[in-house]
Amino acid sequence: MSEARNPLDYIFRPRSVAVVGASPKKGTIGRELLHNIIEGGFNGSVFPVNPNYPVIHSIKCYSKVGEIPDAVDLAIIIVPRDFVMGVVDDCGKKGVRGLVVITAGFKEAGPKGVELEKQLKEKVVGYGMRMIGPNCFGVVNTNPDIRLYATFGKTQPLAGKIGFISQSGAMGESMLYHAQQIGLGISQFASIGNKADVSGNDLLEYWREDSQTEVILMYLENFGNPLKFTKIARELSRKKPMIVVKSGRTLAGSRAAVSHTGSLAGLDIGVDALLEQAGVLRVSSVEEMFDLATAFSLQTVPAGSKVAIVTNAGGPGIITTDAVVQMGLSLAKFSDATKEAIRTAVPEAANLENPVDLIATADAKAYGAALAAVMADPAVDSVIVLFVPPINIDQMAVAQSILEVHSRFKKPIYTSLMGVSENSPPVSLLRDNSIPAYAFPESIVKSLAGLERYRVWSARPESVFPKFKVNRKAAGELLEKAKTCGGKILGLEALELLGAYGIPVVPSKMAGNPDELLEAAVKIGFPLVLKINDPKLVHKTEIGGVIADLRTKEEVLDAYSKLQKSYEKALPGGKFTGVLVQRMIKGGVETVFGITLDRSYGPLMMFGLGGVFVEVIKDVSFRLHPLSKTDAGEMVRSVKAFPLLSGFRGSKPVQIDKLEEVLLRLSQLVGDFPEILELDINPFFATPEAENCAAVDCRIVVSV
Amino acid sequence: MSEARNPLDYIFRPRSVAVVGASPKKGTIGRELLHNIIEGGFNGSVFPVNPNYPVIHSIKCYSKVGEIPDAVDLAIIIVPRDFVMGVVDDCGKKGVRGLVVITAGFKEAGPKGVELEKQLKEKVVGYGMRMIGPNCFGVVNTNPDIRLYATFGKTQPLAGKIGFISQSGAMGESMLYHAQQIGLGISQFASIGNKADVSGNDLLEYWREDSQTEVILMYLENFGNPLKFTKIARELSRKKPMIVVKSGRTLAGSRAAVSHTGSLAGLDIGVDALLEQAGVLRVSSVEEMFDLATAFSLQTVPAGSKVAIVTNAGGPGIITTDAVVQMGLSLAKFSDATKEAIRTAVPEAANLENPVDLIATADAKAYGAALAAVMADPAVDSVIVLFVPPINIDQMAVAQSILEVHSRFKKPIYTSLMGVSENSPPVSLLRDNSIPAYAFPESIVKSLAGLERYRVWSARPESVFPKFKVNRKAAGELLEKAKTCGGKILGLEALELLGAYGIPVVPSKMAGNPDELLEAAVKIGFPLVLKINDPKLVHKTEIGGVIADLRTKEEVLDAYSKLQKSYEKALPGGKFTGVLVQRMIKGGVETVFGITLDRSYGPLMMFGLGGVFVEVIKDVSFRLHPLSKTDAGEMVRSVKAFPLLSGFRGSKPVQIDKLEEVLLRLSQLVGDFPEILELDINPFFATPEAENCAAVDCRIVVSV
Repeated sequence: MSEARNPLDYIFRPRSVAVVGASPKKGTIGRELLHNIIEGGFNGSVFPVNPNYPVIHSIKCYSKVGEIPDAVDLAIIIVPRDFVMGVVDDCGKKGVRGLVVITAGFKEAGPKGVELEKQLKEKVVGYGMRMIGPNCFGVVNTNPDIRLYATFGKTQPLAGKIGFISQSGAMGESMLYHAQQIGLGISQFASIGNKADVSGNDLLEYWREDSQTEVILMYLENFGNPLKFTKIARELSRKKPMIVVKSGRTLAGSRAAVSHTGSLAGLDIGVDALLEQAGVLRVSSVEEMFDLATAFSLQTVPAGSKVAIVTNAGGPGIITTDAVVQMGLSLAKFSDATKEAIRTAVPEAANLENPVDLIATADAKAYGAALAAVMADPAVDSVIVLFVPPINIDQMAVAQSILEVHSRFKKPIYTSLMGVSENSPPVSLLRDNSIPAYAFPESIVKSLAGLERYRVWSARPESVFPKFKVNRKAAGELLEKAKTCGGKILGLEALELLGAYGIPVVPSKMAGNPDELLEAAVKIGFPLVLKINDPKLVHKTEIGGVIADLRTKEEVLDAYSKLQKSYEKALPGGKFTGVLVQRMIKGGVETVFGITLDRSYGPLMMFGLGGVFVEVIKDVSFRLHPLSKTDAGEMVRSVKAFPLLSGFRGSKPVQIDKLEEVLLRLSQLVGDFPEILELDINPFFATPEAENCAAVDCRIVVSV
Repeated sequence: MSEARNPLDYIFRPRSVAVVGASPKKGTIGRELLHNIIEGGFNGSVFPVNPNYPVIHSIKCYSKVGEIPDAVDLAIIIVPRDFVMGVVDDCGKKGVRGLVVITAGFKEAGPKGVELEKQLKEKVVGYGMRMIGPNCFGVVNTNPDIRLYATFGKTQPLAGKIGFISQSGAMGESMLYHAQQIGLGISQFASIGNKADVSGNDLLEYWREDSQTEVILMYLENFGNPLKFTKIARELSRKKPMIVVKSGRTLAGSRAAVSHTGSLAGLDIGVDALLEQAGVLRVSSVEEMFDLATAFSLQTVPAGSKVAIVTNAGGPGIITTDAVVQMGLSLAKFSDATKEAIRTAVPEAANLENPVDLIATADAKAYGAALAAVMADPAVDSVIVLFVPPINIDQMAVAQSILEVHSRFKKPIYTSLMGVSENSPPVSLLRDNSIPAYAFPESIVKSLAGLERYRVWSARPESVFPKFKVNRKAAGELLEKAKTCGGKILGLEALELLGAYGIPVVPSKMAGNPDELLEAAVKIGFPLVLKINDPKLVHKTEIGGVIADLRTKEEVLDAYSKLQKSYEKALPGGKFTGVLVQRMIKGGVETVFGITLDRSYGPLMMFGLGGVFVEVIKDVSFRLHPLSKTDAGEMVRSVKAFPLLSGFRGSKPVQIDKLEEVLLRLSQLVGDFPEILELDINPFFATPEAENCAAVDCRIVVSV
């Protein structure tokens, strides 16, 4: 270990640990933590530190860290809050490089704690140390070279491939317990507490390089730096599956909801978008998290979505089939050879099709033969084995047979022994040999759906963020101007801003009198739409402020005076300043684009179909800025009404590329001008001809 | 017991049981079943029957049932299939009244088995016996007066309040095991196998009268008699909550899908509709079933949806809050008195609002005080207690404290001790005292959502099936006529049929020549729509076969000749027989009504909004005929686009009563004429004025 060490190595791979606040008293954190480290067989020296005891647990106890004669890599601090600063100084002077501060009473405990935590952080940085916590539950590294079990919980986690971050100590403890119960092993664990120094993102970067960590689980309550998380996770998740329980869905900070887009974005939509874009699987419960982690950590990811089911009872087979289809997976269709092989080996089988029902008389031999047959079938991507042990069948032999077949074929296999204890010998045998054994078949299928989602994500092209040539200067000037008049941009100016970023807009001109009107009409060309242009009138249509489908000069002039009258009626005493003249687009589908600012996650981009789809059905899709090409493609395709764009009942498909491009250009716009708080394009006409696609109306709110 | 006995009493409350096919050999069904009955402490005589043994399990063994000297109430038959008939004869002659036939190889085993099962059933009926099975796993009655454990499984179920029916032996066995694991007790259990005689419906009727059965669980693969099930369940579910796992969702029999309605109805929609209408809770997994059953069987149903959460750790509190909001429940808002009471009792509590976070130092006293405070708050309908046991807190004392508070306040309470074994003393203490203890808080919330759904259902008014005055004779004549020409009814005739059942239709007339046309125009009144009337032309609009908004005689005549030309172009050589003249309806919302025949469950009624809502979004609702007033109301209100009907953005609400009435009249129509296979009304204009609501087009398919 003479090479340069990662600073976090002093926390997760320490050669020596001081436990400051160690205690011999039962029921104290200082006792439990020391006990866990020693019982866990830590592969280094442990130094209890406590001025009140000369010896603890038969180990010499020091009154302060500075007295320890040897080098100390890591200090775990359990002393009361008001002693923490002194201990940190002591550690700093001693040359300790890593800290885990268990002690609570900092940021989570009001203003005084916030101030203390700030000081703590400064001190730690000043000494060049790294710190986990404060207010945390500890860390674990099961690596046999290290064996550091530095928590005060009751569970000694099993060794395995999972890196596990918990933002809540209590959740961390109960999750470690549950993982142990189902035989799931972890590589490293950290309860990150208040994250004053080491963050979840730091751990992700650390575990990216850790060959023993192959899957990452996180229980999160918030993201400290969502942008950084996304950047790390987009890449890391392709190599190491990441599974997150993100709580606080419904308590998430509120968001400015003045715009249309803002009012459509649920409070939690930012997190969903972030995780989806980063390829991180979000699950809604701890149970689901571990079911999925079991699948990832024990077996390879199936090459596709086609599942084979082998059972010895009809009912569970049906239940599982139901779940397979409901979760969007499919039943593999067996070849004739496969069916023949099953028929020969298990003549009494009730069903040779998928699900294969071997009936209750099936023994190890029958299971082995049927399993070998379906594993050999190239149409099968993964196999679910269900076994309800009948009284006269040797359960261990069946489990052995599953192992044997699995070792010959490398396809992933998942089992459920129903009506059997979690600790029964056949279940243990399977788990000990990396065959997942679930209590319920539904849990297998749910996990398979997660694996399939991961497979599809992993196959996504690397993120590309196109950069368009735009007129940034023109856009900037319009935005500056808007800031001087309340921060709103409407009508023609908003369309011009879109135009500056290469977003097609419908030919539009302002006309303040009949002469200008006729000039504009000739320039734009019939048919035309005339709209009253006054920001005070929000619902123009309702007061007769829009007249469409004007085909002649006469109609246009007539409409102009009608609009003037409507205006004067609606706003008595107001000054009629003219109309917006626009080419009328016929045909096509009305779509809606939007941007709203999520306070935690930055600009949220929205796409949907116009009118009732967005108003009533709320059929819209969201992603976070910056959008990759893939993100934009997924946004357009994920609205339910997508068939109306792709050619429904013989109608021509619209220019979907163009819609994706608008999203990417909007993302570039909001990236260039973070002062854009809200933007709604409603409607944008999507047409079969590229040249007719155009924004018709737009509304922008800028921070002033 | 001298009073008249229910025939099923001889099966579930026998005074004596013969086990025909009993055996001393380990690993045989005959041994396990006999063993279970004896070990279970059956409160009557057991007679082993097997010609090969003089004694089994120290009990005299008879060579046939007829030899038993005493009366025999129930015979359990385990002999090989080909001996079953002989044994049944023997039982019949002996006067046995109840049979449980475990033996398989009947209906499930091909044509020969089907025939045998038919004979078996006839024999049983002939002797006046009742039979469970064949091909089943047995029956259980835990009533202390009876104690009949007549299955060959490994689980002796705990006594409790749940009646449990399983159509699959394997699922039954694994479910009994799981119930025992989580401490859930059952009253009676039956594996009903092939249901040759006793059906699930029979058991429901039997358990309706059983005071020990308070909750009913069913694992079903199909409904033998769905109509009867609905009839029983609509009433029974109000008194005894019913929970169903119905498998075979995706394997359900296919349905004629020629009509629009048919193509929209998913294969499983009939079951969902049936259970919803009957007030039966459908769950998608066994785990969910038991979680819900635990809640129903241990606690009363909460009086509302407002939940209080008391926790000693922030993370689990947040997770639970998330689940509460996501599942459509709500967090109770505490009164100031409640908050003050918590503050006084637990000064260090981190949060006095809901969820109450007592932090890790909370002991039994703190839990007791906080719980008492929230239980006393009238705004609280139910309480979730989360407890992550810290090392220095007495877990048993906390559990005791929960019990104590619960005994004082009668409000339902649900607990989750996280990171603690299912068998640990505090969990056992809670469960033994009827306090549900779940492994995960999410399971509590999911169950609470089920309870709330049940509460709302139970508050539904009793089903009313209105009967309208209709012209049944006229409708019958139209249907008879249709049968002679291919079974299709379109255009004017279909509208007349609707009219005969009091469903408003738009004023419509046929016109075969210009004179008739003008006469019709005058009679109906402008504006008008003209449509080519030829069943061979399905997509009339696409070939220019519809001309709308005609306001003068001239326009009408002109349109007539245009339609004639379109017709001749589209169908060269066809005979133009005239047009359908209809009043044009302006405004209003297009809706769609439909009927399609579900082969298993009868006529399925559909309602939705027209156009893209039904075509693309598939935003429709389904219920099974016969519709109650409540059903019709729920159908109209459960489409997502309902806001468009109830007055969206200042538009007037349409006549929703009228839409409900159309549904009820259609239900009456299909009830009177079961030969109606398919019916689509598309569109039906729903308008703010009752007199303008009208069907515009209709298509009916009749069985010929």
